[in-house]
Amino acid sequence: MILYIFVIFSVLSSSSSYAAVNDFCVADLSGPDGPAGYSCKKPDTVSVNDFVYSGLGSPGNISKLIKAAVTPAFVDQFPGVNGLGISLARLDLAVGGVIPMHTHPGASEVLIVVQGSICAGFITSANVVYFKSLRKGDIMVFPQGLLHFQINAGGTPALAFVSFSSARPGLQILDFALFANDLPSEIIEMVTFLDDAQVKKLKKVLGGTN
Amino acid sequence: MILYIFVIFSVLSSSSSYAAVNDFCVADLSGPDGPAGYSCKKPDTVSVNDFVYSGLGSPGNISKLIKAAVTPAFVDQFPGVNGLGISLARLDLAVGGVIPMHTHPGASEVLIVVQGSICAGFITSANVVYFKSLRKGDIMVFPQGLLHFQINAGGTPALAFVSFSSARPGLQILDFALFANDLPSEIIEMVTFLDDAQVKKLKKVLGGTN
Amino acid sequence: MILYIFVIFSVLSSSSSYAAVNDFCVADLSGPDGPAGYSCKKPDTVSVNDFVYSGLGSPGNISKLIKAAVTPAFVDQFPGVNGLGISLARLDLAVGGVIPMHTHPGASEVLIVVQGSICAGFITSANVVYFKSLRKGDIMVFPQGLLHFQINAGGTPALAFVSFSSARPGLQILDFALFANDLPSEIIEMVTFLDDAQVKKLKKVLGGTN
Amino acid sequence: MILYIFVIFSVLSSSSSYAAVNDFCVADLSGPDGPAGYSCKKPDTVSVNDFVYSGLGSPGNISKLIKAAVTPAFVDQFPGVNGLGISLARLDLAVGGVIPMHTHPGASEVLIVVQGSICAGFITSANVVYFKSLRKGDIMVFPQGLLHFQINAGGTPALAFVSFSSARPGLQILDFALFANDLPSEIIEMVTFLDDAQVKKLKKVLGGTN
Amino acid sequence: MILYIFVIFSVLSSSSSYAAVNDFCVADLSGPDGPAGYSCKKPDTVSVNDFVYSGLGSPGNISKLIKAAVTPAFVDQFPGVNGLGISLARLDLAVGGVIPMHTHPGASEVLIVVQGSICAGFITSANVVYFKSLRKGDIMVFPQGLLHFQINAGGTPALAFVSFSSARPGLQILDFALFANDLPSEIIEMVTFLDDAQVKKLKKVLGGTN
Amino acid sequence: MILYIFVIFSVLSSSSSYAAVNDFCVADLSGPDGPAGYSCKKPDTVSVNDFVYSGLGSPGNISKLIKAAVTPAFVDQFPGVNGLGISLARLDLAVGGVIPMHTHPGASEVLIVVQGSICAGFITSANVVYFKSLRKGDIMVFPQGLLHFQINAGGTPALAFVSFSSARPGLQILDFALFANDLPSEIIEMVTFLDDAQVKKLKKVLGGTN
Repeated sequence: MILYIFVIFSVLSSSSSYAAVNDFCVADLSGPDGPAGYSCKKPDTVSVNDFVYSGLGSPGNISKLIKAAVTPAFVDQFPGVNGLGISLARLDLAVGGVIPMHTHPGASEVLIVVQGSICAGFITSANVVYFKSLRKGDIMVFPQGLLHFQINAGGTPALAFVSFSSARPGLQILDFALFANDLPSEIIEMVTFLDDAQVKKLKKVLGGTN
Repeated sequence: MILYIFVIFSVLSSSSSYAAVNDFCVADLSGPDGPAGYSCKKPDTVSVNDFVYSGLGSPGNISKLIKAAVTPAFVDQFPGVNGLGISLARLDLAVGGVIPMHTHPGASEVLIVVQGSICAGFITSANVVYFKSLRKGDIMVFPQGLLHFQINAGGTPALAFVSFSSARPGLQILDFALFANDLPSEIIEMVTFLDDAQVKKLKKVLGGTN
Repeated sequence: MILYIFVIFSVLSSSSSYAAVNDFCVADLSGPDGPAGYSCKKPDTVSVNDFVYSGLGSPGNISKLIKAAVTPAFVDQFPGVNGLGISLARLDLAVGGVIPMHTHPGASEVLIVVQGSICAGFITSANVVYFKSLRKGDIMVFPQGLLHFQINAGGTPALAFVSFSSARPGLQILDFALFANDLPSEIIEMVTFLDDAQVKKLKKVLGGTN
Repeated sequence: MILYIFVIFSVLSSSSSYAAVNDFCVADLSGPDGPAGYSCKKPDTVSVNDFVYSGLGSPGNISKLIKAAVTPAFVDQFPGVNGLGISLARLDLAVGGVIPMHTHPGASEVLIVVQGSICAGFITSANVVYFKSLRKGDIMVFPQGLLHFQINAGGTPALAFVSFSSARPGLQILDFALFANDLPSEIIEMVTFLDDAQVKKLKKVLGGTN
Repeated sequence: MILYIFVIFSVLSSSSSYAAVNDFCVADLSGPDGPAGYSCKKPDTVSVNDFVYSGLGSPGNISKLIKAAVTPAFVDQFPGVNGLGISLARLDLAVGGVIPMHTHPGASEVLIVVQGSICAGFITSANVVYFKSLRKGDIMVFPQGLLHFQINAGGTPALAFVSFSSARPGLQILDFALFANDLPSEIIEMVTFLDDAQVKKLKKVLGGTN
Repeated sequence: MILYIFVIFSVLSSSSSYAAVNDFCVADLSGPDGPAGYSCKKPDTVSVNDFVYSGLGSPGNISKLIKAAVTPAFVDQFPGVNGLGISLARLDLAVGGVIPMHTHPGASEVLIVVQGSICAGFITSANVVYFKSLRKGDIMVFPQGLLHFQINAGGTPALAFVSFSSARPGLQILDFALFANDLPSEIIEMVTFLDDAQVKKLKKVLGGTN
């Protein structure tokens, strides 16, 4: 009778083996990319290591100036999240560290403070600011596409992990967007109302031209 | 004047011929697969047979033990549903037949009883059970991702068709997931609270190792 | 020790009881409706009968003329499918019966022939026609929003069930859209190129005015 | 100190350079197409011209009969919209011009009158007609998948732009779908209730066979 | 025989009248709002005027300084687009006019120049700038969530219409987000690297405090 | 001139104040719930505390038996995530602690180990097991709807945070679904192949009846 069970399950599993393909779609980073994500690795070449990533286990390379580092685990670093609408990153903020004003064009974010204290905030389309000093264990959500920032608010290093509602949330850092490329200074000034001296000073710092 | 109509429609149809491409996207099963489905066959290689499937027309191979068979018409069998968020399957349940406890990780399901009588049920995250004996013509919906089952509830063979809200709904049969692979028995026991003897008995039946 | 298990599961279930709310969202048909569907019945007022519907168990009221009937199990008839992206309908076609040319503005459809033989077809944006005579057990998919039709192709009554990729797929029957309302005949003629006599003849049949 | 800023931002930008890939996904029209759109051009081959299109700058080829032209800027003409859920088209209607009854199977539409006056309308699944004469600057929305039309309602040429909620909205023109292919006349007559003479007359005009 | 047609269509239309409800969901602006949009007006209170909006027909109130105006036709102004994933706005730029650097947190945008000449651009997560001078009839797409701007590039007033891939795209103007609220200057300076004098100067102009 | 800036921005901000409403949709937990989430709190009643949650800051109530606790921050605990497609939970595993086999019917999950070592795994529709021992800082993704588990793999307490791709991911714990309700033992045995004694033993432990 036990043999019969085996037979019937073989029949059942014929369908499940077909279906298994889209339980997941580990990114084939060398294959075609599309609006919904990368194409999938062949299921039989997938191993548990495609679903595990160790790159967030140690601090990023912390700058002495902004005293902070962002280490992403987006689809390009962590192919297992391809198509699953989720990814992570690690934030290290030394004392005085700052993650400058930025947006994620395609994702909402939730931050959890694992160590230290962080002042975090975001600004809405109605120009309302929501910010608060967060302690270890606090979480805060930043709705999709809005300007936000994080600042080490304590006297010790801070560590946070952030989750995104997309496998590839994007990251547009305001200062880099404005001052680290070849957008002409006069255009920047027209569309930001910043003074010429200010624009040129930051362009110099951040490597912008024109 | 008739000629003029033809001319203008040729202009109009230039746009419609471009647009036609994504009226549908018949799966090219040999092409790249992605999070949203397979890539599309070239439209000029598509025929009506890509949109028609006859594999549900006869009963699956019914086992004497569980006395049931599942015959899928998912995207891998029926390429015309690629990207359309829908697929079908056929359930044959002989007298005493059972579709064991299972989930579809990525789809809701509606079942329609075409012949006989079926006792069907599902269990929610709140551990509430909803089950009922269904007669010919009755339909029942199983919300996405929840454990559910079907049992022939009558003295005659039963036939049902099930529809899914995905072209590739997946199918995770509980017993196979637990007992038909190499997940070590001690881990299974830790995470299911089943007795060692029970686990080993079912592993033996279903071909599991470790 | 058994007591301890009970304790821990109580802790776990505190989360699952919260989460249970959106395992499903049975439509509260008297509550607010929104772009994603109706608002949900309170979970504690939900019973298995919200997930089961018997209205497809008997043939619709078949007309002697078109010799067909459509019986829907959309969210308004079958509240359990609310928000789940799936619904059903029953098609009864007497000998010579026809489901006239129509679209579902918001859903793809899969048809399964349960009895008899049906000639079914659809037309694409590129004006290509795909049609075929289907036998019992055959299934056919009609991609979203395209004009399609079904005709009893045999000498016996035909029965089919159709599944949709939406809980509320819509149903726009071409003749009714054109001839069963107060859209002025002269406008109809301008935008369809039909003759005035043809338009007025069908308006008279279908109850249109103007 | 300025050097330090540069260093930290380099660290930050390592994540942003990865992420940049899916800020957009310009269609590689020669690459694989999928349910969510075309695969993406390599970011370093993208230029501003992928995001700009000049094809709507001049009127389409206006027929003397229907005195209208539709010029699309869908993904096949304008690859920058791939995956972004938006596209445009230009409507030119000479005096007496008509955009015949049609649907977009996969998109809602908003029309804006830029010049002249247009009578536009749509019909719902409940066979209700909504139509109105629009003046310059008026906008009108046509919900997804419903039959609709536009007629020049004034004594001067009219110009409108239409936006779609999809990069590839499709365009199914009723008369072409019915009369410009090889769908047999007898089937058309069965599913539309049109007279044989009417069907054959329009087939002749529009190039249909059978 | 004509009577029979009427009978059968009545049967058919019983389903279509149910289904009609979600052909559209005109916003009930006084009802509950949700993640997918406003709740729907009762279908029998809807008129064609819910689908038509005249507010873009005349220029917005143009400031002498930035010499520009933005006039939205989002769901709050134009309830017919609720849930349809599309909306519009009108841009008037006098000579020298500027739409300052901004984002739409939840939508992509396509701009069409109807009059004059506009220099438009956007910046990606990789800090690459794409900008170009657009002439009458040119269209340009701005992918979701990215910083972008428009400047009148000619010697005459410019008029453009913009379409969005959302009924409520949001609008976050950089200067207002930074300088028109109570976000403390010292925080702004930490997260933007702007000088204190610059921040305070713009706060004064834009009404910011702290 | 400064005054003029103020004037123009007032015009601009009239649109942004409308648009602000859907930058976020904080759940009104006492209002109607729908398929896309709860209805929104009025924006003027929202404060920063709606976006911050402190409930994950301390360990859950750890059972002596399974030596673990799950503390959710789903939309019902953390209303700010409503409609944003993201949520969190905290896992505390004492030495020997186990999170039993379970699924999230509507979400993918990423786990990050913050303290200790965790053996985590999931099983696919093809019955393949992927499991690995994770160290502090490692992350692992569990694709949507699949059975998975976590076990403290070290000699010290373990702490992990998990992120979900949904504001309300659901949580179906296998043992509770099977043994903690009134699903009759004979049905359980038919659909799981478990022995009667095993079923009754676990029903007794977990509070199941019948």
